Amino acid sequence: MNDKILIIGTGAIGGFYGALLAKAGAEVSVVCRSDYPVVSAQGYRIISRDLGNWNFKPAQVVTRAADFQGAADYVILCSKLTADINRVELIRDAVSTHTVIVFIQNGVETEQEMRNAFPDNEVVSGLAFICCNRIEPGVINHLAYGKLTLGNLPQSVSDKTHHLAGLFNESGIVCTTMDDIVTGRWIKCVWNAPFNPLSVLSGGLATQDILRTQETFIRDIMQEVCLLAAACGHPLPDDIIDTNIENTYSMPPYKTSMLLDFEQGRPMETEAILGNSVRAAERESLACPNLQALYALMKLRELKIQSSSSLSDNAV
Amino acid sequence: MNDKILIIGTGAIGGFYGALLAKAGAEVSVVCRSDYPVVSAQGYRIISRDLGNWNFKPAQVVTRAADFQGAADYVILCSKLTADINRVELIRDAVSTHTVIVFIQNGVETEQEMRNAFPDNEVVSGLAFICCNRIEPGVINHLAYGKLTLGNLPQSVSDKTHHLAGLFNESGIVCTTMDDIVTGRWIKCVWNAPFNPLSVLSGGLATQDILRTQETFIRDIMQEVCLLAAACGHPLPDDIIDTNIENTYSMPPYKTSMLLDFEQGRPMETEAILGNSVRAAERESLACPNLQALYALMKLRELKIQSSSSLSDNAV
Repeated sequence: MNDKILIIGTGAIGGFYGALLAKAGAEVSVVCRSDYPVVSAQGYRIISRDLGNWNFKPAQVVTRAADFQGAADYVILCSKLTADINRVELIRDAVSTHTVIVFIQNGVETEQEMRNAFPDNEVVSGLAFICCNRIEPGVINHLAYGKLTLGNLPQSVSDKTHHLAGLFNESGIVCTTMDDIVTGRWIKCVWNAPFNPLSVLSGGLATQDILRTQETFIRDIMQEVCLLAAACGHPLPDDIIDTNIENTYSMPPYKTSMLLDFEQGRPMETEAILGNSVRAAERESLACPNLQALYALMKLRELKIQSSSSLSDNAV
Repeated sequence: MNDKILIIGTGAIGGFYGALLAKAGAEVSVVCRSDYPVVSAQGYRIISRDLGNWNFKPAQVVTRAADFQGAADYVILCSKLTADINRVELIRDAVSTHTVIVFIQNGVETEQEMRNAFPDNEVVSGLAFICCNRIEPGVINHLAYGKLTLGNLPQSVSDKTHHLAGLFNESGIVCTTMDDIVTGRWIKCVWNAPFNPLSVLSGGLATQDILRTQETFIRDIMQEVCLLAAACGHPLPDDIIDTNIENTYSMPPYKTSMLLDFEQGRPMETEAILGNSVRAAERESLACPNLQALYALMKLRELKIQSSSSLSDNAV
């Protein structure tokens, strides 16, 4: 019998990974809100430089988890982790006794909420290293990369997780598993903590321009993430900063996901990446002035977006 | 005989203070570039809520210091202190043996360049606490405040400085003198170092919104300026941070001068306020992570303004 998989949060990442799982033979359904009219009629069109182009017609297209028919083997949450969403409420109605809950999202210290809400389910944390965009309703452009890393919470890899990783690998992308996925989250944060906010606060610079002119500052921020991860019980590899710097120099100039969200007026993952880091630093009594400054500045930037405060044209 | 005064850098601040000195009976000339056609024909129109409206017709209107006729008793430099100007070259041709050089500009550690260039002249450092705008060529709107503080370098107040302060006081504004004007510059920097860059990096927030939501961050930045000033030999009053916070809460919501420069596409005083502070911190081996972060971010913001780097729409 085919695996029954429900994807929730079907922007570019959810639609793309759902389409891959369908390609590997799973019965994939989606909870889809804004693009519902197009997706329920036609499904998704995937355009991928590396994997070719194909159509993905979900088994069920619904607008909320409660409308999903049947019992899901896996519920995969792919929404952005922004302050305006309630992750537990988004998925609760589709979770049954044997459902494995997978969340593929950025950010650190995002585990406990899910474990508390679903103490009797397997909870799997996932990290996506991918460049893809929704270019119009139901049309997803996969530009580069695609690698996934999965691991059960708190620290293991179950048979069901190995099985899911196998489906992804059959579909043509690389999916690895990691016994300590929480360390994996901190590793991803080493890159996200500097480049995501700096791309927004600079007014839209690509990664290359940021790194080329402010490498010392980038390294200082990365160092704070490393110290913080270690303080939280997840020491990172010694060469992780050098590796991130070298890899970023050899990447093409990028807009970060936070910059794309900013430019398109969408909520940003400020809390998941910076807010949770700063709160962890406070809990561990660790000074992280750069992370604090970036968090404060991103909160100001968000306040400016929300407000249209009337100003007098005075100068001091 | 009337004092011969040459104002160089006749944006809003130079035009306004020049008009006050003329009102007090001095013979005031101006070096004026962009507004030369209007100013040479009609002079300045000053519109002031507190001091009324009047016209100021300069004795001479020239486009460069070399064209000034006669010997100036005072040369007063009022340009913004941005990376693109050479202060010494702007004034050199109008400086003679007995000329007192006054610079009314923001920033810290700005003294040595002037003292080195004019070792035989009196050099006076000035600080303006004022809200005024050039609303069209030759028309200056004085919105509020206006106080000046003057002091000779390195640490004194000369008779000629007392005399100049007297002219300003006769004209209707308050002008005080200060034996240690360098300390005065650090005091002004306590406010400028947080509010100027945060107004730009937030995307245009007024002072009230910044302070209301990020008071702790503001205090952290101010504390670094205080420690730095002390390390540079200029300890500041114990209550300076509290005073600045209270005063800012009781001011109307402001756009900072740096935000106005940013919005109008003019160069910003990043180097004078932040770059010079960070370099002083390095010289004194003092950790100032917040000032460093703000400086790095402002440099990135300026790089974005200068560049129109081509970006691919990728997301990580």
